[in-house]
Amino acid sequence: MISAIPLENLPEITPGFDLASAVVEALARRPEPLTLRSDDVLVIAHKAISKREGRTVSLASVRPGPRALEIAAQQSRDARHVQVVLDESRDVIRVSAGVLITETRHGYICANSGVDASNVPGDDTVLMLPLDPDGSARELRARLRELTGVAPGIVITDSFGRAWRVGQCDVAIGCAGIRPLEDWRGGFDAHGRELHATVIAVADQLAATADLARRKDGQQPVILVRGAGRHVSADDGPGAAELIRAREHDLFR
Amino acid sequence: MISAIPLENLPEITPGFDLASAVVEALARRPEPLTLRSDDVLVIAHKAISKREGRTVSLASVRPGPRALEIAAQQSRDARHVQVVLDESRDVIRVSAGVLITETRHGYICANSGVDASNVPGDDTVLMLPLDPDGSARELRARLRELTGVAPGIVITDSFGRAWRVGQCDVAIGCAGIRPLEDWRGGFDAHGRELHATVIAVADQLAATADLARRKDGQQPVILVRGAGRHVSADDGPGAAELIRAREHDLFR
Repeated sequence: MISAIPLENLPEITPGFDLASAVVEALARRPEPLTLRSDDVLVIAHKAISKREGRTVSLASVRPGPRALEIAAQQSRDARHVQVVLDESRDVIRVSAGVLITETRHGYICANSGVDASNVPGDDTVLMLPLDPDGSARELRARLRELTGVAPGIVITDSFGRAWRVGQCDVAIGCAGIRPLEDWRGGFDAHGRELHATVIAVADQLAATADLARRKDGQQPVILVRGAGRHVSADDGPGAAELIRAREHDLFR
Repeated sequence: MISAIPLENLPEITPGFDLASAVVEALARRPEPLTLRSDDVLVIAHKAISKREGRTVSLASVRPGPRALEIAAQQSRDARHVQVVLDESRDVIRVSAGVLITETRHGYICANSGVDASNVPGDDTVLMLPLDPDGSARELRARLRELTGVAPGIVITDSFGRAWRVGQCDVAIGCAGIRPLEDWRGGFDAHGRELHATVIAVADQLAATADLARRKDGQQPVILVRGAGRHVSADDGPGAAELIRAREHDLFR
């Protein structure tokens, strides 16, 4: 059985905010207090991480270049926002009516390099993805171990669209202490037949599970997922970078 | 809070099997028996549905045509399996080393039209997706209502790969009594700012949550998800067809 439990009433997150301490306090403050366990997974919307890492830009400080001006004119958008998207990208994958799909600095392919204006206080500020989300996850895990003696799995998420499906699902953009992929190739099914092509994106399914437990309009960046302990590892592991399809295997760029 | 609970020890599913009765019995047989509620969601691996609908083909009965022979030769695969994949498709999206990505008869884009050999008894039998998974979901829901007076949400799933991410996630290919998309456009975030591009693929997140609760090598096709009641609807709703991106909006075909 899997349980996904939102942490309530986290304070507004500012640069340098001690998120690990806030998580421990929020768990203790619950009507039925919870103690962090080493087989728990904390799934965290990247906004909480990006805010504490100061990954914001004031659009007033951005001077759009010719490419940004061109795309912004096509799409009736703020050219300064488009410039931040381009600054955060290493490739532009598609520009179409209202859609700007890029490869982020990390290698994720998503809309607008994950640069977002919602849930950010201040009218002209945009929020970027963490510079190194796997590093952010490792840092948070280390801090939790320091505070509590326990090192749960950490997954940092964003909401991504999909090529052929309507709507967004949360996926992992950073993780630590989680095996992002569960590889059943060479394993056997219930009839003793070999499982051929089954590699499960566990970290992404953790992200989706957490988002299902969340109110989108609420301040619930952190979800505790209990019952997924078989995916938690003692070492930090390869991070969500393992989920990025190598360019040479990309059939849809 | 979301809970995802696998139902244990369902019998082997054969054509015509009364899955609704088996689900009710499995819930009652638990050490802590559960009673189905109208705000529950039952998430079901399509294999359970396809088997009860007899959606199997014996490869011995399949005569591969020239296209199937050509692809099979390129990919060192069984040409009869490839023929079934082509029969189940309305378009071939990509053929590459070991990968055959098609658009299914329903409009889903995935590997091998969802035709699969694992978890099927009998060496030369392959299993296809249900002919009308939304219809299957509606039928199961009606039968549960008949048996119990309660009509939970139903989601039928398969494991799909993703264009730019390694590994598979479960997604919805059929549903009833679930609003597949939660549309927050025009809504407001915690800072009172309008949410612009937020449409959440709830049915897919339910699918992913259920798969996380499952052992891949076990016989756990049915997962009860509790706590997602705000997505359950009295009417059957639009089905998972609502999740298919219209061809004119497809940038990656």
